[in-house]
Amino acid sequence: MDIAALRTANPDHWMKAAAIRTLTLDAVAAANSGHSGMPMGMADVATVLFENHLNFDPKAPDWADRDRFILSAGHGSMLLYALMYLTGYEDMPLEQIKDFRQWGARTAGHPEFGHARGIETTTGPLGQGIANAVGFAIAEEIQRAAWGKKIINHHTYVMAGDGCLMEGVSQEAIGLAGMQKLGHLIVFFDNNNITIDGTVDMADITDQGARFAASGWHVQSIDGHDPATIDAAIAAAKKDPRPSMIACKTHIALGHAAQDTSKGHGALTDAAQLQATKDAYGWTYGPFEIPAGVKSQWEAMGARGAAARAAWEDRFAALSAAKQAEFTRAYAGEAPKRLSATIRAFKKQMTDSQPKVATRKSSEMTLEVVNPIMKETIGGSADLTGSNNTKTADLGVFHPDNRKGRYIYYGVREHGMAAAMNGMALHGGARPYGGTFMCFTDYARGAMRLSALMGVPTTYVMTHDSIGLGEDGPTHQPVEHLAMLRATPNMNVFRPADTIETAEAWEMALTSTKTPSVLCLSRQGLPTVRLEHKTKNLTAQGAYVLADATAKRQAILMATGSEVSVAMAARDLLEAEGIGTRVVSMPCWELFAAQDEAYRKRVLPAGPVRIGIEAGVRLGWDQWLLGERGNAKKAGFVGMSGFGASAPAAKLFEEFGITAADTAAAVKALIG
Amino acid sequence: MDIAALRTANPDHWMKAAAIRTLTLDAVAAANSGHSGMPMGMADVATVLFENHLNFDPKAPDWADRDRFILSAGHGSMLLYALMYLTGYEDMPLEQIKDFRQWGARTAGHPEFGHARGIETTTGPLGQGIANAVGFAIAEEIQRAAWGKKIINHHTYVMAGDGCLMEGVSQEAIGLAGMQKLGHLIVFFDNNNITIDGTVDMADITDQGARFAASGWHVQSIDGHDPATIDAAIAAAKKDPRPSMIACKTHIALGHAAQDTSKGHGALTDAAQLQATKDAYGWTYGPFEIPAGVKSQWEAMGARGAAARAAWEDRFAALSAAKQAEFTRAYAGEAPKRLSATIRAFKKQMTDSQPKVATRKSSEMTLEVVNPIMKETIGGSADLTGSNNTKTADLGVFHPDNRKGRYIYYGVREHGMAAAMNGMALHGGARPYGGTFMCFTDYARGAMRLSALMGVPTTYVMTHDSIGLGEDGPTHQPVEHLAMLRATPNMNVFRPADTIETAEAWEMALTSTKTPSVLCLSRQGLPTVRLEHKTKNLTAQGAYVLADATAKRQAILMATGSEVSVAMAARDLLEAEGIGTRVVSMPCWELFAAQDEAYRKRVLPAGPVRIGIEAGVRLGWDQWLLGERGNAKKAGFVGMSGFGASAPAAKLFEEFGITAADTAAAVKALIG
Repeated sequence: MDIAALRTANPDHWMKAAAIRTLTLDAVAAANSGHSGMPMGMADVATVLFENHLNFDPKAPDWADRDRFILSAGHGSMLLYALMYLTGYEDMPLEQIKDFRQWGARTAGHPEFGHARGIETTTGPLGQGIANAVGFAIAEEIQRAAWGKKIINHHTYVMAGDGCLMEGVSQEAIGLAGMQKLGHLIVFFDNNNITIDGTVDMADITDQGARFAASGWHVQSIDGHDPATIDAAIAAAKKDPRPSMIACKTHIALGHAAQDTSKGHGALTDAAQLQATKDAYGWTYGPFEIPAGVKSQWEAMGARGAAARAAWEDRFAALSAAKQAEFTRAYAGEAPKRLSATIRAFKKQMTDSQPKVATRKSSEMTLEVVNPIMKETIGGSADLTGSNNTKTADLGVFHPDNRKGRYIYYGVREHGMAAAMNGMALHGGARPYGGTFMCFTDYARGAMRLSALMGVPTTYVMTHDSIGLGEDGPTHQPVEHLAMLRATPNMNVFRPADTIETAEAWEMALTSTKTPSVLCLSRQGLPTVRLEHKTKNLTAQGAYVLADATAKRQAILMATGSEVSVAMAARDLLEAEGIGTRVVSMPCWELFAAQDEAYRKRVLPAGPVRIGIEAGVRLGWDQWLLGERGNAKKAGFVGMSGFGASAPAAKLFEEFGITAADTAAAVKALIG
Repeated sequence: MDIAALRTANPDHWMKAAAIRTLTLDAVAAANSGHSGMPMGMADVATVLFENHLNFDPKAPDWADRDRFILSAGHGSMLLYALMYLTGYEDMPLEQIKDFRQWGARTAGHPEFGHARGIETTTGPLGQGIANAVGFAIAEEIQRAAWGKKIINHHTYVMAGDGCLMEGVSQEAIGLAGMQKLGHLIVFFDNNNITIDGTVDMADITDQGARFAASGWHVQSIDGHDPATIDAAIAAAKKDPRPSMIACKTHIALGHAAQDTSKGHGALTDAAQLQATKDAYGWTYGPFEIPAGVKSQWEAMGARGAAARAAWEDRFAALSAAKQAEFTRAYAGEAPKRLSATIRAFKKQMTDSQPKVATRKSSEMTLEVVNPIMKETIGGSADLTGSNNTKTADLGVFHPDNRKGRYIYYGVREHGMAAAMNGMALHGGARPYGGTFMCFTDYARGAMRLSALMGVPTTYVMTHDSIGLGEDGPTHQPVEHLAMLRATPNMNVFRPADTIETAEAWEMALTSTKTPSVLCLSRQGLPTVRLEHKTKNLTAQGAYVLADATAKRQAILMATGSEVSVAMAARDLLEAEGIGTRVVSMPCWELFAAQDEAYRKRVLPAGPVRIGIEAGVRLGWDQWLLGERGNAKKAGFVGMSGFGASAPAAKLFEEFGITAADTAAAVKALIG
């Protein structure tokens, strides 16, 4: 690459882009780790985007109608940090750049949502950013339709690399975005032909332009180092009604000895090479030094956005007070005040009618009363709408012809759905939920973990939550998944026993602000076990005494979901024999663990035999069976120890020994 | 669809295909569940494939050089079962068809590998079959190069639906197959435009032909009900040097009232509609009845394969006895006899040199001695070769220009890699291993679960197994993943402490026949802790006493992987204070749990304080800390309780309190 020619062709632009490149080199060198090459390759595209197109205001990073900038190739985090520092984000002073990748810094190795305002999403696991972006763009479309262009009308820009595009989740994102004609979504593909193992063609010969075009995208292919070309391509992308992909031919680690090599992908820390690179750039300043002239040009870039924001504030102020309050509430992630009363009324009604339905149906019944009063919900399913019971009558279907629809047919794309939901939640003003079979959390894990790590309240509606799924067999029957979900920090895993607990779980999910929720729901019909109406949300305590012993308490049966009614039936058998038995329903372990010791002790006193009942593996149960004043000699577990099988559900529960009789026998064996 | 026209155009073909269709209708009706539409739609393609092209011998379902037939759209399992019954597979008598989806039957809701010989792989979770098939085809290419065309020269045929192609993993498979020019891979796309939620265009407008072509595939688009067209397309696909995709325009649930609707995807059980369908077919036979003339035509289809197999047996017999033995051994999944001695010699050498290296490096050192003597290994990495240390000097790179290479650059495709590895293992004669960062087991979970469910000995090399990864930060640091892997039935999770244990873990992985192995390896250097040479494989016991107390035993420190050396350092601190301390290394919980009670009791006697040390979450540890004669009042855990952070590794261990000093303090607090 002829650096001198680049410098002389656009000297003004060059210096601005060089500021990104040299900050990257300096920060990586100081940390002695990181990824230098990507920011150096994409600095020109970023500079043109920020200077001429991106509507952003560093003084108001949370402005609802800002354009979103998403760095899907998250290893190039210094690109984002440099942009934030240069344009003047308050959370990104120079000290943070100098502290790149150090303990306590906001400048983590990969961008972490929540570390600094201006970081729109956590990226690093490849493909997540582009899939998040589809959710950002869907939220924007829905809100543009709902609030009008004066209030919501912005673009979502993404930078993705070869790695993002090789990850399968990118195909799910591309397919969904193409079908949905998300015209405000613009993806820059950093087409540098380099991965960690070598040149891309060692692993992939895909014509990315043709691939995107096959799914209905507008595609351009440009020189990623020529400012005028970049500018024209962005302008064309904004005009086109389809989502746009701009393949930017770039040189990774531009101007460095490692340019165009896989070495350039990583940390370039050699001092002499670093100096040689700066010399080639014509950059005569010290480490982390940005000349005032260049810095002021960068800071001026926020002016367009600041003006736009001021105009937006005026338009927003013209809305009715009620509308302003509604908008502000939704963007704050707060549930409407009447949600609580609505759930209470629903619970009362259910206590009266005592339906025997699957909890997936209970979930639908709950959503039928919630969705009409909570307009920010966006529902969907990965092609299992009728099985997940996720679609309520009022939602309408989101489609290019119906942008007011709030239900999304995600297609058979569990991972893309989860990542898109994270994007919607991060966008603000939206509360996404989506369904699939619980076993297919396996496919969605990459994005589900990020819900937890970012602390966004995405809600996963995971139905067919055990061998109760029946004939579809072991490929579709979760046995290890409850343990897997519970192992994940900051994730509330709900497994409600009946319609009442399902409604309570939904209330917890919809009022959560920093924690995702997973609702594990049955395929099979379950009796109502909560026969007495309580206004209090008992599920909020995580576990509670559902039925106490009448005879002298000798056993405590602890169960979740569909096995709570098994526990109740076992209790009947035991009490009939004079064995006093308490049943503890445990719809959410995480919330129970968060209760104070005194409450936990009231629910799980020392002494009685304890049996855990759950149609999943035991892993994790010992916390409650042996810990919490338990006794290994007086504890047992009724559940699964391997994979399931294909047969009618009732037969499976019988063959795998998860019945009231098995439970009663286990208690009696331990009582001796 | 004009059924009458189809019948009269090719009456002979029609009846054979109708046999598949009616068996499907009858089996689903009897089970009152299942998926009727797919087999009814693809029956014509299957009939032509089996009659004119597929080299198979129902009398020898394990014949190494057979063509493989993979039903990626596994919900259409009755297609496969019908084909197996009709052509005369011993494991698939009519009784099995009648027992579809019932307890104990081989005819599970989705095809389960191991239930009947002839089922090549477990499918159902969509996209897995097509991704397995890439592995089948790679194994075939490698073995064709290694053994010559006379011994290995067959095709892999796949049937995939819209759902398979919407799943991201399919893109990973398509990209890898296209780059690798897997000319013996032929995919039929069941292009019926129907998903569960409705027509495909409600969720996807992708031009699948253009998408495959973008990745270098040969693409054809045909009428999936016209036998001559189908035949010609298969012939053309076999001739083309690229992988082939044949988009077959079909009608789901052909001839039924539910034809071309999403209802047709599921269980068609209405008796009157079923009869009307049979009437339209001109099918006058009773339930499950196949007229002898039709059955004999189906049975005759195996003749071509039987003849080919007989000729193959002759060619195989012409090989030297040594070559025959080598081939047979590899196909039996047995390790070479000298593996054990090789590992022992390596361990001796390592005990002498006591290297301080990361266990990912230990793994590479082990592979350097293993790969040369075990020619069936096929290594690879999802674009992290230099980090996973998976490539040894002798392997060569698998590439269209070098089919003898045994190392695969999978690209950034963790899920596709895992599924392809399953395919290689299922193909036979291959022992695949592949690497990525352990955190990205999240991306590969869908296929990793199937390794366990199918019982295939795929080996996962998962490096950077904790916060020891350092600066890349929490997106790349597993904390819940050990628990998740351990929750999965039939999966051996190894976390070796040093080079010796790593070699022992590899020996276990390479000799496993029915269980996949996950090797969790450190990024950071670890001291050798096994200072005394033992010929015995101690890792095979799962856990063992690494160092016993010298003073009176008051504490047992239990640790895995990088935390074993932390435990050893803590032991030094405690022993110096007169607190006798045993260190138990636990490289594989599953194997320890499988030991007899007497051994477990010797390792973990009742009495002393127990501390678990692991840079992951506690979930699961209570089994060893509180169970196995433990005592909740005398147990503690030194590890993680949330996500990690971005900083140098040593700083992270210090900040998260996973050090020898923290461990010693925890012991002393419990001793009181």
